[in-house]
Formats: sequence, structure tokens, C-alpha cells
Amino acid sequence: GTMKVLCGPRNVVVERTLTSSGVFLFQMGWGDLGAFGEPSKETPNLDQMAAEGMLFLDFYTASPLCSPSRAALLTGRLPVRNGFYTTNGHARNAYTPQEIVGGIPDSELLLPELLKKAGYTNKIIGKWHLGHRPQFHPLRHGFDEWFGSPNCHFGPYDSTERPNIPVYRDWDMAGRYYEDFKIDLKTGEANLTQLYLQEALDFISKQQASQQPFFLYWAIDATHAPVYASKQFLGTSQRGLYGDAVREIDDSVGKILKHLQQLGISENTFVFFTSDNGAALISAPKQGGSNGPFLCGKQTTFEGGMREPAIAWWPGHIPAGGVSHQLGSVMDLFSTSLSLAGLQPPSDRQIDGIDLLPVILQGKLIDRPIFYYRGNELMAVRAGLYKAHYWTWSNSWEEHSKGIDFCPGQSVAGVTTHTQEEHTYLPLLFHLGRDPGEKYPLSFASEEYQRAVEHISGLVQQHKATLVPGQPQLNVCDQAVMNWAPPGCEKLGKCLKAPESDPKKCSWPH
Amino acid sequence: GTMKVLCGPRNVVVERTLTSSGVFLFQMGWGDLGAFGEPSKETPNLDQMAAEGMLFLDFYTASPLCSPSRAALLTGRLPVRNGFYTTNGHARNAYTPQEIVGGIPDSELLLPELLKKAGYTNKIIGKWHLGHRPQFHPLRHGFDEWFGSPNCHFGPYDSTERPNIPVYRDWDMAGRYYEDFKIDLKTGEANLTQLYLQEALDFISKQQASQQPFFLYWAIDATHAPVYASKQFLGTSQRGLYGDAVREIDDSVGKILKHLQQLGISENTFVFFTSDNGAALISAPKQGGSNGPFLCGKQTTFEGGMREPAIAWWPGHIPAGGVSHQLGSVMDLFSTSLSLAGLQPPSDRQIDGIDLLPVILQGKLIDRPIFYYRGNELMAVRAGLYKAHYWTWSNSWEEHSKGIDFCPGQSVAGVTTHTQEEHTYLPLLFHLGRDPGEKYPLSFASEEYQRAVEHISGLVQQHKATLVPGQPQLNVCDQAVMNWAPPGCEKLGKCLKAPESDPKKCSWPH
Repeated sequence: GTMKVLCGPRNVVVERTLTSSGVFLFQMGWGDLGAFGEPSKETPNLDQMAAEGMLFLDFYTASPLCSPSRAALLTGRLPVRNGFYTTNGHARNAYTPQEIVGGIPDSELLLPELLKKAGYTNKIIGKWHLGHRPQFHPLRHGFDEWFGSPNCHFGPYDSTERPNIPVYRDWDMAGRYYEDFKIDLKTGEANLTQLYLQEALDFISKQQASQQPFFLYWAIDATHAPVYASKQFLGTSQRGLYGDAVREIDDSVGKILKHLQQLGISENTFVFFTSDNGAALISAPKQGGSNGPFLCGKQTTFEGGMREPAIAWWPGHIPAGGVSHQLGSVMDLFSTSLSLAGLQPPSDRQIDGIDLLPVILQGKLIDRPIFYYRGNELMAVRAGLYKAHYWTWSNSWEEHSKGIDFCPGQSVAGVTTHTQEEHTYLPLLFHLGRDPGEKYPLSFASEEYQRAVEHISGLVQQHKATLVPGQPQLNVCDQAVMNWAPPGCEKLGKCLKAPESDPKKCSWPH
Repeated sequence: GTMKVLCGPRNVVVERTLTSSGVFLFQMGWGDLGAFGEPSKETPNLDQMAAEGMLFLDFYTASPLCSPSRAALLTGRLPVRNGFYTTNGHARNAYTPQEIVGGIPDSELLLPELLKKAGYTNKIIGKWHLGHRPQFHPLRHGFDEWFGSPNCHFGPYDSTERPNIPVYRDWDMAGRYYEDFKIDLKTGEANLTQLYLQEALDFISKQQASQQPFFLYWAIDATHAPVYASKQFLGTSQRGLYGDAVREIDDSVGKILKHLQQLGISENTFVFFTSDNGAALISAPKQGGSNGPFLCGKQTTFEGGMREPAIAWWPGHIPAGGVSHQLGSVMDLFSTSLSLAGLQPPSDRQIDGIDLLPVILQGKLIDRPIFYYRGNELMAVRAGLYKAHYWTWSNSWEEHSKGIDFCPGQSVAGVTTHTQEEHTYLPLLFHLGRDPGEKYPLSFASEEYQRAVEHISGLVQQHKATLVPGQPQLNVCDQAVMNWAPPGCEKLGKCLKAPESDPKKCSWPH
């Protein structure tokens, strides 16, 4: 949608057209798209999106798992700042299951809250994952509409020990997974992606009709275990159920882009596709995914855990077929979307995202590091083509011996360690150009090592000196806060009785 | 070049235009091209070639290392048939170093010999690798011109213990590597690819001027250790020296294709790009390469050793942007090139290659298995998306303990074994769609396993029942046969004295 507004710095009055934004966020690995070398090459629509837009080859999420990444995307800030981490254990991943007490603090400013100031209508379709208690509701944090769920679609649950996860329509629940929104775990069949697609198409039509700029956050979850796909896609992929889900997502993205074109608003809509973490190799091969040539997957701070597929699309603005090596981050979508709306990022707090428009529109490269956090620990830092690991860990021996493996088929001595190894004084250094798979640490004695580590250590010092960690939101769990009686449950006769409150430290095994 | 000839089956006289063929063969891994997901994406010309032509995602070489694959390409036959294997040890890789006594037997019919019958002029530029003694000279086997070398560009040698490898211009040597054709091992600088490029451009110009159809086999070796690149490309890649070499090859391919277009013969020239083996991970990270998401590399019969990048290009005939899942082989280039020339493959022997034109021009899929040999042993067979391993081996414990690793950073229990493991009665089965990395063998008890193995075992029985192994050419080595005094050495004053003949069994450690 387009509209004319008056805005601009100081006294200069600028007339400009607002550009709508769409962010498509999935759990997919870097290597899951044909354009990124997936050998089944079953993503013609995403590949076409890349051919018409710009492919980012060095784009990162802010955490090796889902909810901290999503919080980072919407706040433009690292999870350690916005509170989406835990101090229950050193370097432990944490997310927002339905026992979680915490969620997005009111003090955080979310992208949709800010976009409202420029007249945007904001919708989230799919998984919110920034806390499910009433104060964390997305419509309290800037979104105008919501169709989706607050937590992952795990289940089915018996609704006595734990309730099934609700699906919301705006303020109220519309039903629950497995009860009202079916997922057949045996066949993998569920029509949810089709519902989410229709929601997106309808929202876009409505916004186009009312000439309102919009922000659509399409954060669907078909590729997250338990993986699902609609009947028409089941069995259509070489890759099994996971591939079927990818194909359905690919088809949906194609339909949304085509819809924008048919409505004549594609040149006023900036669309970005990326992922919230690397492919979960623990779920492979049936529900896994591919991180291409990179090491390990979800849960780890190796490239497989945090480097993501990423495509920017904006016909008439982004030159077709572009490729960028800009070090990018999901947090940049915050700053870039604000920039598109003619807004400034908040100046009262540290924003980690940068405005990618100069990169996307003018092919510039902006020098900036990438910080790889796992929970409360800065595990690694990338600057240019060098990546320094200050800590290495895949998972514990105890977990590993139970068959939990974040790096199946991969093992690099001293790197994919099963104890937390500190390298603070002598970081392991990799050159990601010559060695994208993080297999060959550079010699500590080399001049190249010393030059690169000196540079990166300076960045780390600067980063740590100014870091103000947020109140950790993922420390406390309580069965009483689960989705027993979400708003709207009365109308549906779906309220359940919560047990007594019994807050405990959440257990984060890796 | 084009010309009109009369040919055709029986009495039907058909007028047709002959299509020239170019085969570009390199040692590169599946994952070394941007179009196949290499994260530095530094191959714009090859990617463009793929965008204008057809990408093969399931294309294989005939052996996990160089000279047997090259012999297979030129004969359309498996190395076990054409003699490019050894019986000195079970399942041992073998190639043609300069001590080798054997080479391509006169009884083999090579593609250029056959194309001569249709009036083709044939040139090989680069590494021949089918034997270097006089009877194996490429101009005795159908080629009209040669610029390149008979063996790998190893060295420098002192020319007393062993001579440097010669570079030939047609019948005679033109000099030797390191002496007359410099390779600076310290910097990696050598201008050889530029020489080979100029040879190709000149040959094509000459053929176009004389209106003669041609077959150009551009088999250069810059990505084979010791890797080299010209000064103008050194330091230009994110990937180091290996990437510099890839960039120079990419640039050269672009120039050759452009030359065909500028001469107006691109629509009469079928061009195919592929590789003779997977990336040599043993040379990583400095001189390695990438096999993308696949297991292990050169020397092994895992996907990383034998699945290759492959692109067919023929403007005006091949629809742009095509992608094929046809199981293809370098041996198919033999049959396909004959088909383009209106010739039939020899009927007096088993030809393993198939004519890919129906695949390329009409998008057909031809059902055929892929046989993965290592030396004299059929290690694995692929049919459809299933791959059955009858033997597994990476390399010996003895070699592995010395740091020789064909699967660095990778380890799949029971699969990447360091002893030769026989699975003849219960093959390990992988589904390459769900599990392209060969990490998750299917359960022996599953119905899927039983169905697939029954099918593949039938193919194996049929294959073995009709197999007539050729005389093994790679069994005997002799220091006396090395390149001491190649033809033409007198004119250059470069003849060296050969030691006494002392034939021995060649030692093939893996």
C-alpha cells in the first residue's frame, strides 16, 4: 500500500511514499533452498524470488534457536539485551515453552510499535514466541492483528498434565492445536500453512484496498518439528515430509509475491525471507533440513546453527540477481524496516541492527561484526572472513550418549566439543572463505592469526564494555502459567483449570 | 562449425547439420560452483552458463579419481571394462603416474576416433592421463591436436631421480613443467590456464573459419594439487588459492562461450561442463574444494567422491534455466556426442554411457543405475533415490593415523570405515533425497529397505553376469618408462637418460 506523509529530519519537509514490509521467517537451514545448493532443488518460487532480488550469503540469526532470534528481529537487539536468555546455566540455550513465566518486557520497543507512528497496520501470522502470558500478547506490543500461536505446536497433550497450545485470532484464542487445528503426527498432514497463506493474502488485499502501508510478519512453522504439510503436498518431495513442508512454504511464498504483483503494490512492498535458526539436525533425516557445507546445526554457534538463507525482494528497486556478502543479521530487519518507513531507530538504547538499504540498493558493504551468543555467553565473533571462537560446545557427553547429536556425522577435534571449552585467551580462529566448514583452525603462531585475533579482540572489548544485559526472561518456569485458560476460552468452552503456582528454575540442558 | 553431410539409418537419406561439442573437464567438487551453493559464489560465468542451459544435480563420474574417469569419458565405458583399474589390491584406486607402464589399449574406441568418421577435427587441451608411452599418445587415439601434458603437473623434480612432466604440442614435447612452463609452488602463480584458454579460442576460430565441425576436450588442471592461478587472479577469491584457480577457470569458460557466440556458432556447439572426481578434501583447506552437503571426497565412493557439478549449454536448443534429476555419468558424454554427430555407438562391446539428448532437449528421465567402482570392486549402486553400499571404506587406519583423511571433519559410524567392510549380503541402504549426506542407513527390517534392495540387487546381478573386465592397465610400474625422453626432446636438448627397466607392481595405498 502507499500513502503520502510528511516527515523528515529537523525543518526539512520531505514528501515520500511509505513502503510496506513483509518479513517471512521460517526454521530452515542455509542449504535448504535450491538457490543455496539443496540437491533436490524443489524451491522454484524462492529461487525465483532470489533471481528477482538479492541473495545474502552471509546473513545470520541472533541466536541458534527460535524465540531469542524472534525477539531480536522485532527489537533490533541481541537477546542478551532484550532479555531472551537465561542465567540458569552457563551458555545454555533457552526459549519460551508454555511453562515460561517471562516474555518480552514492556520496556522493549518492538518494530510494529514504532511503525505505527508512520501509520502502518501490522499483522503477525504464525508463531509469536515472545511469551504467552497476557502482558506479552502481540497486540499489546504493536501488532494490530494476529492469527497464530504463542508457542511451538508441540503435542498432542492430554489437557490434564498440560494443555494443547492455543491458536489465536487477534486477542482471543480460536481453538487449540490437535483439537481444533489438526496435525496428524502419523502422516504429517495439517492444513495450517494453507490457513496462514489465506490470512496473508486477505490481509494484503485489505491493506491495498484501504491504501494503508502495512507490516506483515509471516512467521509460520511447518518446518519445525513436528513437521507438517497439507495433503496436496504430502509425498511430493524427494526429501520426504520435511521437503513436502518446504515445498508448501515455497508455493505459498510464490503466491504471496504474485498477489503483491497482481494488486500492483510489489514496487511498494519490501519483502525479506530468512530463518530464525539453522536446520535442526537433531530431527534429521525425517524432519531435519540442510545447513549446506556448514558445521553442525540449530542449538550451536557454529555456522550451521546461525548462518541463514536470506533473500531481499523489491521489484523496481533491488536489481535482479544481486548477491551480497554483507554480514547481515535478522536484527537488521528492524532498522531497515524503520528506514523504509522514514523513521529513526530509538536513540535511548543500543540497537544492534543496521540499515541494510545502502547494501541492498547501492551495493555497499558495511563493516560490522557478528556476535554469536548462546544464552548468556558470547561464544564467537565474526569480522570479515574471520571467525574467532571464545567458547566451543556442541552438547554435553551426557546428552550425546543418549543420542542427542547437534552435529550428526560431523566431528572436528577440539571444535565440536562435548564439554564447554574456554578459548578466551587464545581463541580458535577460522577463515570462513577458505574453510566455511570450520574444520581447520589457523595456527596460533601465524601472523595471520595474530593480526585477525587482535582486531576481533578489540571488537569484543568494545562490545563487552558497553553491554548492559537485560533482565533474563527465560529463567523461571511454572506449570500454572501454561495455556490453561487463554482469553476467549469461555466462549469456546475450552478453559482448563490451572494447577497451583509453583515457580521453578527452568531446566535448560544445552 | 556447421557442415552438411549425408547419413542416416539404412536407405533413408537425411540431411542434417553437425553440431560441434565441447567438453570442459575439471577437478572440482559438486559444491564448488555458486549455482551449486558455494558460499563465496565467485563463479558468475559458470552460474550464467547454468542459467542459460541445464543444470544436472545427479551427475556422476565413473571413478573417484582422475585418469580412470577420463578413460571412461572418452570410451563411454566403465574403467573396469576399459582397463583403467588395478588388481594389485582389493578395491584400490589407481591412476596413471609417470611410472605407469599401461595406458589406453588399442582395442578401445575413443570418442574422437569415432567422431572423425563424421568429419570432426578433435583437439585435447590439458591433461590426457590415459598413458604417456608412445602407443598411448592422444594423436594415436583420434585426436588431431594436443596442447597439454600426459600426467599430473606434480614436481618440481630434479630430473635425475625423476624427470619433470612434459607439456606436448601435438606429437612432440614443447617443454617441461617447472622448467619451461613455470609453476611457483610458493605463490601458486602459473599462467598455464591462460595458455590453455588461448589454445581453445584459437582452435575454435580456426574451425569456424574452415567450417569444420569440431570436438574440443578442454581438460585443464589448475584446481588439481599443486593448485595454481595466473597473477591477475591471485588473491582475488574469498577462498584462497583454490578459489583463485576456480575464478580463473570460470573466467575462461565465460570467454570461450562468449567466443562461440561472437563467432555465431553457439547454436551449433553443444558444451558440457563437469568434473572427473569430487573435491580432494585431503588437500583442504588451502587446495581443497567443496563437495557441498555430501559425504567425503575424492578417492571414496561416497557422494562427495563421485557426484559432480554438471551443466549442459546449447543456446537455441536447451531451454534456459532447466534443472534435471536424470542420473547422469561422464560416460554419457561419449554417447551423447556421438548422437549429436549422427553416429551410432559401437555395437561390438558394452557401452555404459547413454544418449542424454532426450533428457536435455525433451526433459525426459531415463531409468538407469549408477555403479560406483573403486578399482576392481563394485562398492555401491544407485537406482532412483536409493543407494546401496556393498562395500564401505574411506582409507586404512594406517594411512588415517598419518593424517591422510578423505573425510575431514566427517565421521559416520559403520559407514566411513577404515577397514574394508563387506555388506554384500546386507547392503547399507541410503535414501539420497531425505539423506543426501549418507548418514542414516535405512533399517534392514523395513519394508522400504527390502523393496529397494531387492530391486538394486537385481541390477547388480544383471551387471555382474555380463561384465567382461578389461586387462588391468594400472598394475605395473617401471621407473624406466617415465618421461625421460619424450618425442621432440632432441630438438629442445631435453632428453634425459632412462634407468634400466625394472618393472614392479604399482603400490596403491587406498
